[in-house]
Amino acid sequence: MKTLRIGLIGTGFMGRTHSNGYNRIQNFFPNLEYKPKLQAVCSRNEEKVKAFAEQWGYASYETDWKALIARDDIDAVDICTPNDTHAEIAIAAAKAGKMILCEKPLSRTLAEGEEMVKAIEAAGVKNTVWYNYRRLPAVTLAKQIIDSGKLGRIFHYRANFLQDWTISPDVPQGGAGTWRLDVEAAGSGVTGDLLAHCIDTAMWLNGGIKDVSAMTETFVKERTHAATGAKQKVGIDDACLFHCHFDNGSLGLFESTRYARGHKALYTFEINGEHASLRWDLHDLNYLEMFDHSDDSIVRGWKSILVTDGDQPYMDKWWVPGLSIGYEHSFVHQVADFLLSLEKNQPCSPTFKEALETQKVCEAVIDSANNKQWKNTGVNWPC
Amino acid sequence: MKTLRIGLIGTGFMGRTHSNGYNRIQNFFPNLEYKPKLQAVCSRNEEKVKAFAEQWGYASYETDWKALIARDDIDAVDICTPNDTHAEIAIAAAKAGKMILCEKPLSRTLAEGEEMVKAIEAAGVKNTVWYNYRRLPAVTLAKQIIDSGKLGRIFHYRANFLQDWTISPDVPQGGAGTWRLDVEAAGSGVTGDLLAHCIDTAMWLNGGIKDVSAMTETFVKERTHAATGAKQKVGIDDACLFHCHFDNGSLGLFESTRYARGHKALYTFEINGEHASLRWDLHDLNYLEMFDHSDDSIVRGWKSILVTDGDQPYMDKWWVPGLSIGYEHSFVHQVADFLLSLEKNQPCSPTFKEALETQKVCEAVIDSANNKQWKNTGVNWPC
Amino acid sequence: MKTLRIGLIGTGFMGRTHSNGYNRIQNFFPNLEYKPKLQAVCSRNEEKVKAFAEQWGYASYETDWKALIARDDIDAVDICTPNDTHAEIAIAAAKAGKMILCEKPLSRTLAEGEEMVKAIEAAGVKNTVWYNYRRLPAVTLAKQIIDSGKLGRIFHYRANFLQDWTISPDVPQGGAGTWRLDVEAAGSGVTGDLLAHCIDTAMWLNGGIKDVSAMTETFVKERTHAATGAKQKVGIDDACLFHCHFDNGSLGLFESTRYARGHKALYTFEINGEHASLRWDLHDLNYLEMFDHSDDSIVRGWKSILVTDGDQPYMDKWWVPGLSIGYEHSFVHQVADFLLSLEKNQPCSPTFKEALETQKVCEAVIDSANNKQWKNTGVNWPC
Amino acid sequence: MKTLRIGLIGTGFMGRTHSNGYNRIQNFFPNLEYKPKLQAVCSRNEEKVKAFAEQWGYASYETDWKALIARDDIDAVDICTPNDTHAEIAIAAAKAGKMILCEKPLSRTLAEGEEMVKAIEAAGVKNTVWYNYRRLPAVTLAKQIIDSGKLGRIFHYRANFLQDWTISPDVPQGGAGTWRLDVEAAGSGVTGDLLAHCIDTAMWLNGGIKDVSAMTETFVKERTHAATGAKQKVGIDDACLFHCHFDNGSLGLFESTRYARGHKALYTFEINGEHASLRWDLHDLNYLEMFDHSDDSIVRGWKSILVTDGDQPYMDKWWVPGLSIGYEHSFVHQVADFLLSLEKNQPCSPTFKEALETQKVCEAVIDSANNKQWKNTGVNWPC
Repeated sequence: MKTLRIGLIGTGFMGRTHSNGYNRIQNFFPNLEYKPKLQAVCSRNEEKVKAFAEQWGYASYETDWKALIARDDIDAVDICTPNDTHAEIAIAAAKAGKMILCEKPLSRTLAEGEEMVKAIEAAGVKNTVWYNYRRLPAVTLAKQIIDSGKLGRIFHYRANFLQDWTISPDVPQGGAGTWRLDVEAAGSGVTGDLLAHCIDTAMWLNGGIKDVSAMTETFVKERTHAATGAKQKVGIDDACLFHCHFDNGSLGLFESTRYARGHKALYTFEINGEHASLRWDLHDLNYLEMFDHSDDSIVRGWKSILVTDGDQPYMDKWWVPGLSIGYEHSFVHQVADFLLSLEKNQPCSPTFKEALETQKVCEAVIDSANNKQWKNTGVNWPC
Repeated sequence: MKTLRIGLIGTGFMGRTHSNGYNRIQNFFPNLEYKPKLQAVCSRNEEKVKAFAEQWGYASYETDWKALIARDDIDAVDICTPNDTHAEIAIAAAKAGKMILCEKPLSRTLAEGEEMVKAIEAAGVKNTVWYNYRRLPAVTLAKQIIDSGKLGRIFHYRANFLQDWTISPDVPQGGAGTWRLDVEAAGSGVTGDLLAHCIDTAMWLNGGIKDVSAMTETFVKERTHAATGAKQKVGIDDACLFHCHFDNGSLGLFESTRYARGHKALYTFEINGEHASLRWDLHDLNYLEMFDHSDDSIVRGWKSILVTDGDQPYMDKWWVPGLSIGYEHSFVHQVADFLLSLEKNQPCSPTFKEALETQKVCEAVIDSANNKQWKNTGVNWPC
Repeated sequence: MKTLRIGLIGTGFMGRTHSNGYNRIQNFFPNLEYKPKLQAVCSRNEEKVKAFAEQWGYASYETDWKALIARDDIDAVDICTPNDTHAEIAIAAAKAGKMILCEKPLSRTLAEGEEMVKAIEAAGVKNTVWYNYRRLPAVTLAKQIIDSGKLGRIFHYRANFLQDWTISPDVPQGGAGTWRLDVEAAGSGVTGDLLAHCIDTAMWLNGGIKDVSAMTETFVKERTHAATGAKQKVGIDDACLFHCHFDNGSLGLFESTRYARGHKALYTFEINGEHASLRWDLHDLNYLEMFDHSDDSIVRGWKSILVTDGDQPYMDKWWVPGLSIGYEHSFVHQVADFLLSLEKNQPCSPTFKEALETQKVCEAVIDSANNKQWKNTGVNWPC
Repeated sequence: MKTLRIGLIGTGFMGRTHSNGYNRIQNFFPNLEYKPKLQAVCSRNEEKVKAFAEQWGYASYETDWKALIARDDIDAVDICTPNDTHAEIAIAAAKAGKMILCEKPLSRTLAEGEEMVKAIEAAGVKNTVWYNYRRLPAVTLAKQIIDSGKLGRIFHYRANFLQDWTISPDVPQGGAGTWRLDVEAAGSGVTGDLLAHCIDTAMWLNGGIKDVSAMTETFVKERTHAATGAKQKVGIDDACLFHCHFDNGSLGLFESTRYARGHKALYTFEINGEHASLRWDLHDLNYLEMFDHSDDSIVRGWKSILVTDGDQPYMDKWWVPGLSIGYEHSFVHQVADFLLSLEKNQPCSPTFKEALETQKVCEAVIDSANNKQWKNTGVNWPC
């Protein structure tokens, strides 16, 4: 049994999901060689970080991430801070020889991401990026079915990520819950926050994205900034849509927005192949839907597969058939897979390098939207 | 080409659905040997029956059903009047040597039904009862799948028919739209009106019902009678539930009500077999749902079969795959099947004799509810 | 009572849907001032057109459409032929002073469409184009809700039309059932066949489309031509995707394909407004889904409205609450609305002029895809 | 801060769900006055209980439950063993002055349950029974809506619990995973295992059940017993159906089975009131469906409420809107509510006394099925 001493930076929403991920390993994946240990958590506000440490069981806390990275008793740094700090922290952590688990998106810009990849490659440290949705059982099952060749030639891939939480112009930009609306902190709006998920899953399932044609929109042009209290121009994209070619010749269609009234976190994808199709959505995350053209013609139909059986991905670890799991389990699975990758001395996908390919698409998307023209992504996949 | 001259009695809701059934045969089933001809329609109010005849294309009208039956130019009598007149009209029509198409339920009581069956057997006339839901393509497909043996041993059958249109105590009993609330006219409430459909389908799909244990309720005890204008005791059952054994050892569960807020005409059934299950509902009538345990275990699920392809029942007559049909098409199909039965000189199921078996179950259900004990039905199926 | 004598040209799938539309008016819309009369039908094959006339009840037939147009006893010409003949027939019919009901799309190209509009304006004849989906009750209800202002500012509109019937490379191009794959006959592939529907509905519901960025794909590059029996290059678009701006500032996203395995005729749209959202799909055409943000926060949700009640569009003409109608009813409603427009001496939307605006978008879409750049549509809406 | 020292007896499926429930309190309900501490776990097999203790974090273990109860450092005993041991353990624990959390059903028989209630009342110890489904947010929301009076007079309540895991005759009876098929260990089959859940929820939501009429069936008559290795008669009910009257005059319909092919753990309920209806199912546990008749008539429909917002029950403790939770969270909530009940010195519903009322219904159901007659339940609700 080996201990992996975690140093977590950032105590927001993602700090909570990751901490929960670590905490549940012992109960549900007891046979892994590596055990995570919540060694330290870091955030600037001492009172808050202390409370967080107590709530989640961290053995200690720091208020300066550099102090955390400098510690000898930390094996892996988990970066849960806003996007504008990912590069600096990751590069420093790599230099300090720490493993790195970085919340997505990898970076604000492709250039930042490239520096980060250089740094982890130079340091030779283990790394992964939290594109957690891959680890939902129904999504992993989709991957298995696609990889089996069951779908045949792929014609279409479509995904969207629809939210509605920023429709009110009274939502501020900047600050704890709303830094995602501040272009300085976030780098982009829905492109990095939501589409990045869609792109990661899409390339994982369907291969590289070759070129894109995109549009973006900022519906609310000014919002009060939490830092200044003043109305400021909004720099992020409120909505982003694009179509694309995949390397395999299929067509992609992507949409994300925070202005789709009625949808809270509706991430959906669908893939249409010659022989079969699959679709999935995050609001009903335990289901995978499948149409199999090889069924007898009179009984063909879309099948709702409730992915809760022991022979389906990850589900032997949880309850009994029919009993569903939730959003948070994706993070537990990612922790487990990271620990397993250490055991097997293999990369834990998506690595920084893979996540950089997603950044290439994001950058091309923003570029294409700004310049109103098609853009090649330069993606190399698999990588 | 032979002409079947129809004499329709009753110009209410069912008069309309049947007339529409006849009218569409020429366009959609042009190759049948027999063509229906709307020879005459009958209703007591001359003004109304005249308008009905004009609207639906009847060549003539009568205001006395006995006159209609007496006519030489009528081959088949279609009975669409309230239940209390079915027996008298059918017996007279049989004696007059007319074929009979009788709206369901066959009769108010089992005794009435027995007289009707005797009459049509004595007369040797063709006959059928309008249990139209059998003829929806998805329901017919269910029958084909069950008959193929695909489901294996059957364990469960459940059906319900939920409506909400009589919740208000202001709905009267008796009269044109509301004779179904008047026990004199209807014989029973939801048992004859709704459960009779469920029972007919159930025995067609799953065989005879052996014994029943039922309960009924009348939620609104008094309603104004349309005839008298006075508040009168309500004699019908507002809701009826029963469980039962089928001859094949499976268990049945049935429920019907007009007090299920939010459901307009939600007729559903589900059948669970050893190897597969099927379910269907009238609000989404073009779909049949199927679970097939012989699918690979990791991709098993309930399949939504959109029954609109040319190799599925009746659908070669209509449009192209994906384009749905509606409620009314069940009546067109029943007309087509009746005409085809004449061509082939075969009975058109459900015959009066089969419908009498459904009456046996209805009677046993009411009896069981009244006496609070199990009742044998005496059903012989198939018959 | 006035008679509208119809001359129908074309006896394919649309010839059947329109004929059925006329035939059902007397039974379901008996109080209209104008009654359609199936005066003549035209198709080149005499044997077939004779059989069609008999099946559908046309009083006569022609094998040359010019002969049909020349007849004095025809008031309105209904064009159901492949797209390459729309312009010539419509222009001739207009010159002959006939009313025109033209199947969609209006034309193969914008230029053709402009000639057609000129012709009907010069002739001053009544005209309409069969964008039938507007007349499904759930879609009309969506229009009423949007027009009421309930949705507030609109942010997003998305639509797709997904089919899978041409995936096999063995499907030929050209000929009776498959002229839609022949670019000469069809003008375009899914753009004119499927997207045109989506665009018509979208502009009707959400106003003009200002500019577009599109991509198209032809997955199967060669198909046997039914006329020559030889493999020929496929000229149509198998799939077409575009995003756009509406005049009201909302973003549009459209996709259509015949390569989405598992979808037969899945036309869907969704519109997201500040206060409410709506969505609909053709496979469940009796339902409209609505999310209303003004509901109490703890019970907000997407509502499935079963549009079958008498106070909902068109449904007072059919059955009783809960009982669904089908695809074909959209054509009956369009006939009824055309007849009503004569009665009221008003245009029957979509007129040729409105349909020309849809052609503008289609042309801009094809252009944009070919040239890989944004295109202004030049649409004027309303028109 | 006070510590509640837990002694858990039984390390099967329920041992795991309860342990998980305790373990997550600190992370998600950090502000409760009482903190659970996993002091000891007990099971007969030392090797297994030791491993369980390590996996779940118990400070110690026992192999004899009497030893566990005798310990001074245990405040509350959690009973997760098969049903045949509930009474003996609970009575002993009560005598030892321990709080008791007992897995459902309370007991095998009503008589056993009565002894248990007597014992806890005599001892005056805190107690609760794990009818966990009440604590799913959507179910708790249903309770709130019903209690608000929104539904008006109730007409119907229906519930079922459908599984399919015992269809194969090769499933044994008795032993670790399958004691639920052994009548000695379980007391009954689906009645105590599944229907007990349905009855508990039903009475909580809709009040007392007055009388019942039931039927049971044992489809597989003999199964190998895990203890003896011999084929033995099966004593449990494989399926159980009943209808009933509630005290409020509404009609109930209940069904449970382990022979409904295609359903893993499909617990559903629906309640129909004069003004509104609600329905829910365990396979989509984050949703509550609601039909509200007070909506405008043209936009009435069944609403899918995704219960994940912070103002909905329990959801302020978890993630952000749109992100779902799973089955296991119901146990976390029950732990939290038990701890809160200590803080407030209030009973934690369902208490043993309430659970005894559920036993009364179960007993009446079995009695009714055996004797083929209606049975009064003798339920007093609320209690």
